[in-house]
Formats: sequence, C-alpha cells, structure tokens
Amino acid sequence: MKEFTIINCSLVIVSPWEVRKGVKVHVSEGVIDGVGDYESGDILDCEGGVLMPGLVNSHTHTPMSLLRGYKDDLDLHDWLKAMWEKEEKMSKQEMNIGSEISVIEMISSGTTSFVDMYFNPEGVKELSEKYKVRAFAGETFMDSRENPEAVAKRQRSLSPSRYFRPIVNVHSLYTASLDSVRTAYEISKEQDTWVHIHLSETREEVFQIKKRTGKFPIQLLHDSGLIDRIQAVHVGWVTNQELQYLKNATHCPTSNMKLATAGAFPFKEMYTKGTNVTLGTDGAASNNSLDMFREMKTAVLVQRHSYWDLWVKASHVLQASTINGYKLVGVYGGEIKEGMVADMVILDPRKARPLSQERVISNVVYNVTGDAVRKVIVDGNVVYDDEVKERFKTRLDQLYEEGGFNG
Amino acid sequence: MKEFTIINCSLVIVSPWEVRKGVKVHVSEGVIDGVGDYESGDILDCEGGVLMPGLVNSHTHTPMSLLRGYKDDLDLHDWLKAMWEKEEKMSKQEMNIGSEISVIEMISSGTTSFVDMYFNPEGVKELSEKYKVRAFAGETFMDSRENPEAVAKRQRSLSPSRYFRPIVNVHSLYTASLDSVRTAYEISKEQDTWVHIHLSETREEVFQIKKRTGKFPIQLLHDSGLIDRIQAVHVGWVTNQELQYLKNATHCPTSNMKLATAGAFPFKEMYTKGTNVTLGTDGAASNNSLDMFREMKTAVLVQRHSYWDLWVKASHVLQASTINGYKLVGVYGGEIKEGMVADMVILDPRKARPLSQERVISNVVYNVTGDAVRKVIVDGNVVYDDEVKERFKTRLDQLYEEGGFNG
Repeated sequence: MKEFTIINCSLVIVSPWEVRKGVKVHVSEGVIDGVGDYESGDILDCEGGVLMPGLVNSHTHTPMSLLRGYKDDLDLHDWLKAMWEKEEKMSKQEMNIGSEISVIEMISSGTTSFVDMYFNPEGVKELSEKYKVRAFAGETFMDSRENPEAVAKRQRSLSPSRYFRPIVNVHSLYTASLDSVRTAYEISKEQDTWVHIHLSETREEVFQIKKRTGKFPIQLLHDSGLIDRIQAVHVGWVTNQELQYLKNATHCPTSNMKLATAGAFPFKEMYTKGTNVTLGTDGAASNNSLDMFREMKTAVLVQRHSYWDLWVKASHVLQASTINGYKLVGVYGGEIKEGMVADMVILDPRKARPLSQERVISNVVYNVTGDAVRKVIVDGNVVYDDEVKERFKTRLDQLYEEGGFNG
Repeated sequence: MKEFTIINCSLVIVSPWEVRKGVKVHVSEGVIDGVGDYESGDILDCEGGVLMPGLVNSHTHTPMSLLRGYKDDLDLHDWLKAMWEKEEKMSKQEMNIGSEISVIEMISSGTTSFVDMYFNPEGVKELSEKYKVRAFAGETFMDSRENPEAVAKRQRSLSPSRYFRPIVNVHSLYTASLDSVRTAYEISKEQDTWVHIHLSETREEVFQIKKRTGKFPIQLLHDSGLIDRIQAVHVGWVTNQELQYLKNATHCPTSNMKLATAGAFPFKEMYTKGTNVTLGTDGAASNNSLDMFREMKTAVLVQRHSYWDLWVKASHVLQASTINGYKLVGVYGGEIKEGMVADMVILDPRKARPLSQERVISNVVYNVTGDAVRKVIVDGNVVYDDEVKERFKTRLDQLYEEGGFNG
C-alpha cells in the first residue's frame, strides 16, 4: 500500500506523553503524513486496537536464540565457558538460523528496529530485507577471537541497503585493544555510523581497565577522543564524573540482573544530563526473552528498586524504546507524528484493560507483553498480521528443526 | 472425566528437579495416580505440549483488577490516596466483578490456586465454585477501616466448600492492633487455617512498630505467641534474628520493586533455614499483571540483583510457585506424582523453544508467559482450553463493561 489510512483505533499512543482518541493516521510512501480526520488511499482497519509507535531493541545478539536456556543456571564462569564452547563451533549458517528466529520473534512482539552485535552482519542484512525490518549490525572487534585487521577489512566491505545500515561493534575493552577501538572509530566515520560496545558492565571489567590504564573505562574512551561516536551498553558500574561524556547509553536490565552483575544503570542521572538513553533485551541466552514490552517493565522495576525512588516512570521507558531508539539509529521516527517513518504497532485492546486514555500507557508498559501484538507496520508495510503469524509459525518450526543446537 | 490419561506430552515437568519424556499421566477422581506407561479411561491429548504442575499465586487482591493502571505513576503518597478514595467507594458488586476478572486472568495464565486478601470472601467463594479453582480468602482485619468485632463475626460465619477454604486476613500491624491479630489467630485455630498478613514491607512500617512496641514486627508476633500460624507477605525489611521464626513467607517481587519499597526479601536465607517460601503477584493495581510465569522470572532477577549472587535459580522459584504453594494452602499437590491432586497446566511447546529436557525449566521460567498456557486442569477437571478461552473472552468483555472503574 503506497497510501493508506489507519482507522478505528480505540486509542492512539502518539508519544509517551500524549494519547489521542478518535483520530485516523494517514500514511504515504512509508511516512506518516497526518494524524486527525483526513482519510485517503487504502484502509487499514485497526478493529478497536491500540496504535502505538514501533519499538527499538537497542542491544541484542540475534544468533543466540539457539542458545536460549542452554546451561542457564550454572555459575557465571561455567556458564560463559559453556557458552563460548558452543559459540566457537557455531557455523555461519547456524548463526543465520539463530538470527532469523530472533528477527521473527522480535517482529512478532512489536520490535521494528534492532541493533545487533555478532559475527554475521551479511546474514542479518539479508534478513532485514527479507522481513522488511530495520537492522543495524556489523562485524565485531574481539581481538581474543580474531585479528582486528581481518575484521576491519570485512567491516569496510559492508554496505547499507534499504532496511540495513552497518554499525561497528567492539565486543568490549577487555577483549579488544584500544587500537581496535580506534580502528572501529575511524571506520564508523567513514561509514557515517557509530561504535556499539559493551562498556562498564561488571566490576571486574572496570577494575581491570583501571588497573591496566589508570582510568575508568568511559574516562579512557573520552580521553582518547573516542567517546562521541560510542553507544555504551550496560553501564552498570560508572562514576558520576564519567556520566557527562556519554551521548548514547543502553540499559539491558534483565540481562544484568540475571547474570548478577549488580551495579546500577544511572537512568535518571543520564536522562537529566542529556544522554540518549535506550533499552535492549541483550541476547536470548542471557535474557531469555526478546520481548521489549517485558523489558520496559523490568527497566522501571530495577530502577525503582535500586534507587528507592519512583522517578523513572512508564513514559520514560516508552520514550527510551521509541523516540530515543530512533534517535540512536538515526531514523526520524518513534512517534506517531507527521513526517516520521510509519513504524507502528497495533495491540489487542483486551490486553490493555481497563482501557482508557489515562491508563493506557501504564497498562501497556506494566501489563502487556509481546503476545498482545496484532499487527506491525515498518516503513508503511504491514510486516506482521494474522496471516503472517501463520507463516512465521511454519518458518519457526523449520528453523528450530534445522538449528540443531538442542541439548 | 472421572478417569483419564494424558498422552502425547513432549515433556513432563514432574517437579522443579525432574523432567520426563515419553510418559503418560493417569488421573482418577481428581488425583494423579500414575506417571509412566499406564493408560486407562478417557484420553486427554497433550498434542506435543509441555505438562507441568499448576501454579499457586500466594498473595493477591482480586478486586483490584478494576484499578489496574489507575493513576499508576503518581508518587507513592498520592497513589495510595487515589487508590483508597476509589476503594472506599467500591461496592460489593464491583469487588465481585474485579475478582471475577482476576480469577479468569489467573486461570488463563496457569494459576490453579490463589490466596486472596480483600473484603468479599463470599464472592470469591462463589467464584471458586463457578470456575473450579482453589481459592483461599477471608475477611480482612483493618481497624482503620472497620471495627474488628464486626470483622470477626463475619469471618466466623465463613465456611469451606469444595474449592474454597477460609483464611484469616490481617491487613498489617500498622492498620490493625495486636489485639486484632490475636483475634485473627484464635479464629484461624477454630477454622483450622492460617493468618495472612502484610509484614515488614516498608522501612516506615518497621520503624513505626519498633518505635511503638520496642520490637521489630516479626519479633513482636513471635514474642506474642502468634508467629506459628502466620503467612508473612513481602518481608523486605527484616533482621537476621527474625528469620528463624518464619514458617511461611511470600515474596512479591514486582509489587515491591514497582512501589520502590526497596529492601530485600531474603530468599536464600529463609529457604535454607526451612521457611516455606512462596510467590505472589500482589494485586493488579501494584503489579499490574497476575501472570505467575512473569513473577517467577522477576523473583530470580531481583534476588540476583540484590545479592550479587546467582544462588537463586529457576528451579527454586518454580518450587516456590508449585510445591511450596500447595504446602502453604494445605493441599497435597505441586508435583506430578502419584497421590497428588491433579492440578496441572499444558503449555504450548513453541513458547519454550529450543525444547529439550535439559532446557525446559529454564525456558519456562525465563521466557514463557501466561500466554503460552493451552489447557489448565484443577482437581481433574479441564477448567481452561480453547473452547473455554472463547467463553472467557466474552465474559471478560461483559465484566470490564460492567466494571465501570475506568478513568
């Protein structure tokens, strides 16, 4: 549909601070070009559903769906060992199977864009075109695993396509040298993109970096002139001093809690100091779900628990998962607003009851899960509905069958 | 069906520590009387689903589904004020509507027994018989709201029925006098039941009780000879000394986190000292979901986050929600084992993938939500399946319509 109007929505969550009733949303050429009375082109009937912006999963490792639940509750050291042993044996084909499972699961639960760190960006690129979902992925610098020159070479050959844009991944400061981060930074300039890195996740990491370099991790990247293109993921152990340097930070509450990394992601401080705070599920091996609705709730919960404070509210995490997510990936979107990309989700209104303008954001964040998603629109294309759901079911059956990572 | 055999389960989670494959479960007169090869009576086809014990929601306030999302993110003081204003105006009929919504939601998400604190136990009793789900509810001592003698009188007239058993609720030590707790205790002896109370939930509560009586709340109940029949709910602010006294304690992780009560429920310490640790969602106004699968995951997350330790595992919270829940309510159940009540849940196996004997408990706790529930069996009756689901849908539409608590 080149041009269509979404009608019969019970409520439209226009932004984290505004819910409208009785409005139609007009889309043309993949862009929202009106919210109000205007109706033109084809009709997309919301059937009483709740319309909201699509969600951005700002940090995941898509191939890891095959490792979901694998030796999950071992102690951290043994779990990592088991994980790496499996991962080392993972073929490119298996990675792509895992990524496809994750892509299907994410779309089905309302994710319209995702940021991925792994070793199969070409596979993810193909999937993004096949499923028409916005993907941001790249090669990953991890010196302990591979020579950085080889990584740089492949990264430089990675090109954007309609739904895909390369990013440059660095696994972490404890698995990659500062030189590798510099290379990643340079490539990110060439490719007009950013550097996506696990940063200040554990006490051990912070301790090691401080011991080795005399500086805290974020301070180190700042002093090295590298911080401005960095998307820092986790940021659970950070000094007040460092906070001011961060332009982009991603909170992965479930994964950090599940792995008992402790610490605290300083959501309020960063938010008020102007960091673009986003939200991610992390991979399916450490979460184990890829459902951004659940992640939004958990983010509020852990913030309130850690800080003994109610400051972080449903609207903040919705903002982190919509507006801020789109800001991170450089796409004008995240609200249902004229000129923004038509990336939207229609929810089953029954799952957000009692349904009212005043309560809906609360019920979406605190009660809804991805299972409430009825339709997903990306770039003006309906990429998920009842019919697609059936196709996804069959495809997932095949993929899990082929995956062969059971045990 | 008086006698039937459940066949074609892909996996059977017999207990938190044992998963079996290729077994049939034979049920007779509401009781499991065999797990193995034996087949007799009618057939219940699992269609490849995962069979597991039913879940016990050990703490909720069923009428509050009508208040879900109502002024949710106000500061605590304003939220409580708004909540109490609404609650004071709630009629018995509205309470029963709220309870019916909660009962339907709980059954649909795999809960087979629940423990309820509110002011409409007769209504809950009726619902338990109508829906064939095990309910444990009673009047609530809350001196600030009602004269304890009137409460005692109504409580004494409350009688058990097939699926209902009276319990005695005391709202808390800060809203009810120690005399009221004594009365509740006496009645609980007469009725052969227990006393269900919010205890040591907030710092403020502990401070007030200590200031008023010179003792910490649990210590006070112990020294007053009242602790042995107590189910203590929340227990977020507790001294080491007090832990040894608790026979039953219920963790409500989501509610405590959402309300920023902070503190820490000492799961590991209580578990290892022999307290029967159970799990509850709390009411829909503070959670806002009644899904015990989500609650199990959140319990592991907050424990690991608070204690910087991986000790609490998926199997512990599954135990808390099954075996320990049944122990609390005094019903021989919680495992799929000969002689235990036939309270079971069949899950969509697609939602627990990758599906394997080794991974299934992990995937059920960390990835599944109540939406994965296909069938629910209580006392050998199928109380939820695809057909019931349709009826529930219609009934929920009516109830939310009648509820009239929107705004």
